[in-house]
Amino acid sequence: MAWANPSFLEIPESYLFGTIGRKIQEERERVPGKYIIRMGIGDVTLPLPPVVLAAMHRAVDEMGDAKTFQGYPPAAGFDFLREAIVAHDYRARGCDISVDEVFVSDGAKSDVANFTDLYGDANVIAISDPVYPVYLDSVRIAGFGPLQVKFMECTETSGFLPALPTGHVDILYLCSPNNPTGTAMTRDQLAQWVGYARANGALILYDSAYEAYVSTPGIPRSIYEIPGARECAVEFRSFSKTAGFTGVRCSYTVVPKGLTARTKFGHDVDLHKLWARRQATKFNGVPYIIQRAAEAVYTPEGQAAVKANIAVYMRNAGRIRALFESRGQKAFGGVDAPYVWVKVPDKYDSWSFFDHMLREYGVAGTPGSGFGPCGEGYIRFTGFGSLADVERLEGLMKA
Amino acid sequence: MAWANPSFLEIPESYLFGTIGRKIQEERERVPGKYIIRMGIGDVTLPLPPVVLAAMHRAVDEMGDAKTFQGYPPAAGFDFLREAIVAHDYRARGCDISVDEVFVSDGAKSDVANFTDLYGDANVIAISDPVYPVYLDSVRIAGFGPLQVKFMECTETSGFLPALPTGHVDILYLCSPNNPTGTAMTRDQLAQWVGYARANGALILYDSAYEAYVSTPGIPRSIYEIPGARECAVEFRSFSKTAGFTGVRCSYTVVPKGLTARTKFGHDVDLHKLWARRQATKFNGVPYIIQRAAEAVYTPEGQAAVKANIAVYMRNAGRIRALFESRGQKAFGGVDAPYVWVKVPDKYDSWSFFDHMLREYGVAGTPGSGFGPCGEGYIRFTGFGSLADVERLEGLMKA
Repeated sequence: MAWANPSFLEIPESYLFGTIGRKIQEERERVPGKYIIRMGIGDVTLPLPPVVLAAMHRAVDEMGDAKTFQGYPPAAGFDFLREAIVAHDYRARGCDISVDEVFVSDGAKSDVANFTDLYGDANVIAISDPVYPVYLDSVRIAGFGPLQVKFMECTETSGFLPALPTGHVDILYLCSPNNPTGTAMTRDQLAQWVGYARANGALILYDSAYEAYVSTPGIPRSIYEIPGARECAVEFRSFSKTAGFTGVRCSYTVVPKGLTARTKFGHDVDLHKLWARRQATKFNGVPYIIQRAAEAVYTPEGQAAVKANIAVYMRNAGRIRALFESRGQKAFGGVDAPYVWVKVPDKYDSWSFFDHMLREYGVAGTPGSGFGPCGEGYIRFTGFGSLADVERLEGLMKA
Repeated sequence: MAWANPSFLEIPESYLFGTIGRKIQEERERVPGKYIIRMGIGDVTLPLPPVVLAAMHRAVDEMGDAKTFQGYPPAAGFDFLREAIVAHDYRARGCDISVDEVFVSDGAKSDVANFTDLYGDANVIAISDPVYPVYLDSVRIAGFGPLQVKFMECTETSGFLPALPTGHVDILYLCSPNNPTGTAMTRDQLAQWVGYARANGALILYDSAYEAYVSTPGIPRSIYEIPGARECAVEFRSFSKTAGFTGVRCSYTVVPKGLTARTKFGHDVDLHKLWARRQATKFNGVPYIIQRAAEAVYTPEGQAAVKANIAVYMRNAGRIRALFESRGQKAFGGVDAPYVWVKVPDKYDSWSFFDHMLREYGVAGTPGSGFGPCGEGYIRFTGFGSLADVERLEGLMKA
């Protein structure tokens, strides 16, 4: 008799965005032909820049010639891409990260979820509430029960920032700029977390998938801008939101050498080696064509195109925030992140306001409660749609 | 204090092919400029067919136009590819598999290793010896200790086929056509395993990554050709060896609906739902461009090109086998699989014969002992190199 992992029974059966997709489908069946403004899932809409397309066309041609054909990619990525990442994303910002500390992957979601493979059973894990649901779901799938997971409440009164844990914690998930609240930690705030982790031997998993959206001067893009972070933090980055790669699939994770965790036998083991082993054993690398696409993002044309696309999304986010504020609703984010976190009117909860907005205006957000209990009473909208859709919503809601 | 998964200390620190790569590097340092004939790692060398390249060029262009741009792919794959898979690989062979039972992924290695996420702690797991090392390594990483893993010895006297387990087993890994021995199970042999699994409520994980290499009439390509297999088996397939996609990264896994496993609380849970949930939570799908490439493999031009490439590799394998046989060494495989499994001369073990062949002829195989203790005394060579390399080796070894 094969035995199933019982943890799957403890997490919601449907992934949040699956439920939203179903509700949109139902609304379309209720009102055939209804136009839906998609501001729910954080998916980009602008096409890839010409310099990225050209790089992929070249790489496709190389795959058609025996002399330039590429077989298995290196499990951690081609050096041409890892070198571009280190030069532009770390050395240029004064961060001491080496090429072999960068692991190229198919998605920050995969990496952040698969990192649980490295965890021993004894860990106590702290996760913000509300936050991107994959942290909690993957930790639960890995078998960590309710007593081993502590939630760090992020409320309006604390600016949606988690407070340092009071009790014992071994592993901490931080996401800044934050999904879903749109807040971003300052250098001083992030330095407090690095100090806490170092003092307690805790490990920080730092998700900075939205770093390219930071506009406020002084807000760190990488945790490695904070002295000492190499000794306590892993960083997850993605090209999905930075370069419009949600359908291209490329990301990377930085695991500094010398970062360790302890086994129950008292050994300190190097997490860099463990992650290298995990990726070599359970992953076969990112397609050559895709890695060439990611490399092209770092060209001057690529950087200019990416910045222009981000400006479009951020203008959308700013207008969405202003739209709700003009109706007297409190709204947050949309400055250093493409997410706008809107307080729902008193008579609604997150899902009923979601339903109301979908029926009344045909707009799909993401109910805040889907990101954790403290998200109840909020709804998230993203700036990733088109300006035309933002204008359409403005017209409908102001009518 | 962050706690590490102690299981990583129990598996070899370096993945087998990493060690081989290092030895090749050392040989190149010993004899600068030495030409190395790579018959070790099972990596293809022939370029992609024109019809596949054309499909990728079209898909790249679509990603450059807002009207056809593709964001997040469906976690289980686009229906255009899943439908092509079902039509060609299953319905055409009389197998009853539906489109939503197919999960498109980035590699059979990822899927077979990640499938351990679905396992409860109580399972006793049977793995062939020798076999593809990822089964054992991923099971160990998932925390299954030596008492929970049984090895099924595959020796020359049994035609390198595993015997049905005598004691209790919950999960079984089968690989046919086999990596590394090159043997393939007949319909009757496979039917015995399906019968065993159904009688015992066991789950078969069936790796048929090399099915396209079967040439002997009557050898099954899919476990679903055996009646009753839907109730006991998951099947892993890959475009890597079938279509030369090792650098393109596309595969699929079939999890039939109605296939269940039990939890310790006595619930029977649907593995199809669990895998769907696992993939939606920890994976974000395969790039649109790559799925269009895989779809093109099923066109008439794609099928013709793929068959021509396989014929090249199989001619190589046949000649490698004949070469060793001409020296009086026993050799197996190379008929229904691209692998030749050669018995090493008495005075060597697997690694010393590997070293001897690398020094003497510049050819790199894969030591049989790297696939398990029963692989000791054998070495694996692959037909994936060029005919020129096979001829070079023939010249050197016959000189």
